[in-house]
Amino acid sequence: MAQKTTLKEFEAVFPKLEEVLLQDTQKYNLPKEQQEWFKKSLEINAMGGKCNRGMSVPDSASLLLERPLSDDEYFKAATLGWMTELLQAFFLVSDDIMDGSITRRGKPCWYRQEGVGMIAINDAFMLEAAIYNLLRRYFRDHPRYVDLIELFHEVTYQTELGQLCDLLTAPEDRVNLDNFSMEKYRFIVVYKTAYYSFYLPVALALYMLDIATPQNLKQAEDILIPLGEYFQIQDDYLDNFGLPEHIGKIGTDIMDNKCSWLVNQALQIATPEQRQVLEENYGQKDKEKEAAVKKLFDELQLKQRFEEFEEKRAAEIREMISKVDESQGLKKTVFEAFLAKIYKRSK
Amino acid sequence: MAQKTTLKEFEAVFPKLEEVLLQDTQKYNLPKEQQEWFKKSLEINAMGGKCNRGMSVPDSASLLLERPLSDDEYFKAATLGWMTELLQAFFLVSDDIMDGSITRRGKPCWYRQEGVGMIAINDAFMLEAAIYNLLRRYFRDHPRYVDLIELFHEVTYQTELGQLCDLLTAPEDRVNLDNFSMEKYRFIVVYKTAYYSFYLPVALALYMLDIATPQNLKQAEDILIPLGEYFQIQDDYLDNFGLPEHIGKIGTDIMDNKCSWLVNQALQIATPEQRQVLEENYGQKDKEKEAAVKKLFDELQLKQRFEEFEEKRAAEIREMISKVDESQGLKKTVFEAFLAKIYKRSK
Repeated sequence: MAQKTTLKEFEAVFPKLEEVLLQDTQKYNLPKEQQEWFKKSLEINAMGGKCNRGMSVPDSASLLLERPLSDDEYFKAATLGWMTELLQAFFLVSDDIMDGSITRRGKPCWYRQEGVGMIAINDAFMLEAAIYNLLRRYFRDHPRYVDLIELFHEVTYQTELGQLCDLLTAPEDRVNLDNFSMEKYRFIVVYKTAYYSFYLPVALALYMLDIATPQNLKQAEDILIPLGEYFQIQDDYLDNFGLPEHIGKIGTDIMDNKCSWLVNQALQIATPEQRQVLEENYGQKDKEKEAAVKKLFDELQLKQRFEEFEEKRAAEIREMISKVDESQGLKKTVFEAFLAKIYKRSK
Repeated sequence: MAQKTTLKEFEAVFPKLEEVLLQDTQKYNLPKEQQEWFKKSLEINAMGGKCNRGMSVPDSASLLLERPLSDDEYFKAATLGWMTELLQAFFLVSDDIMDGSITRRGKPCWYRQEGVGMIAINDAFMLEAAIYNLLRRYFRDHPRYVDLIELFHEVTYQTELGQLCDLLTAPEDRVNLDNFSMEKYRFIVVYKTAYYSFYLPVALALYMLDIATPQNLKQAEDILIPLGEYFQIQDDYLDNFGLPEHIGKIGTDIMDNKCSWLVNQALQIATPEQRQVLEENYGQKDKEKEAAVKKLFDELQLKQRFEEFEEKRAAEIREMISKVDESQGLKKTVFEAFLAKIYKRSK
């Protein structure tokens, strides 16, 4: 098994986990039609993504061990990786309903597919439940079983707190720029994205290898949360300044009234006249108003502002990585791998 | 503390739990507005019910110990009881969205309240998360902590399986009586209601007192699941044959296309002509069609059929209770208390 997992290798683990989850519903005598429904929900919602979060569990485990994983280790690490994908699926299915989104991964969102509708809410719950089902199945005898459960509980809760803040700060139907602030922005980004996307996979690898000492967890959190924040700021930057052919979509943050890094930076430096432009044009489904905001973002030199931020943040993270104490089994390479994937990405 | 808890005593525990949950959000620096939102969601969705499920935890614990609970025991048992109420709140908030319900406990459903809408989905998640938050806070050092977590996970999953079956069997907008069967009815009732309403509170009391031996859990399940099924059948019966002044609402199961015990019994014994009446009149928002179904239920003597079922089921449960092996600390009185509350209830 290569040190860096491929999507193909990672996806090859999924059918076994799906089989286990479906067998479990048979134990409860779930009727056939409902079994088929759950199978479809699992395949459409958990599969089909880029699996960056999931794959980073076996990748991190291998970097921590400084050798390729055995088949059994790979299966265990990939199973934990699939749990992060199930957690993400739980969030995406429900976020799409809450945001009234139209498409996901190039297809209609699950709740918009034929015959699904609000049943998607229960499907989201079942994706979440699958995490604990698999944890119990494969990790009940692991010395850190309780910590693994508590880690998923805590990260789930953190993400829900971030989502609550996001929903109350930027309702799509009521534009109020006074609601925005860099403080709220940071809260949303750290809790809604950074914990489950960056801290969770590394923490899982540490627990799996039973080297999740308080010091190792703390060092991982101290680096991965700023890194996750940086990742989301990049995402916001690319939504406006990225090339559609690179990012695979046309950004809609301005029209969607998103509490993004760009608008928060703009609010910090805008003159009263420039703020007026934002007040009159932000968060409306109107191409001309969007263009006025884009023009303002250019005037305010937000591209350069991001590039300065990126250099500064990357330097800070490199500095933190260089100081990582490896004496309890943590490895700098884990964080270097994350930073390398993110620094100056265009997609 | 009296052996049988009152709603007032039980509700008196809630403010402490609420305070703990809110303090926890402060630890994460959740902004003030979001804290207030969570507080309101907790108070509206977890409080205000009859708390039968929640109160049966301290009641069962007291019957198991054959003495009143100490203050500390009462607080612990009531906390577990409040977790069952939080679980129910999580289900009700989301079921109301999935079912398109209008009112709950005499007020608009949470998702229909001013400014809430689909944010209610995330609120439901946070009610679920509160269970594990409280479990960790108060039971982390309990010898059965892992079992308590796993019990909540399993019962949550069972309820979701029941809900999935219900949603696919009886969509409100497509009437198809071929979908209905007593087999599916039993699955829905057992999984969607019996486990979390009847088995869960007793299992929690057994774990709390550390007498949750496999034999005790099995005996509890063997009695409480048929009892829970009986309870739901009564509910279906009262929806049509109960007095609105007793049950506190006007039944709508016929118009709502519910896969209820009555329609399933009717389908079992109807002549082809009578089935035709059902086909033409069941599951439609039309008072005259509803009256035609009600008339058919009378003709088929479903009232008497229920009364026969009730006597038979109550006798079977009494028989099972009489055979309970109390050698590992289980007590017949626990089940007798449940049966007494249910037998021949009119509300």
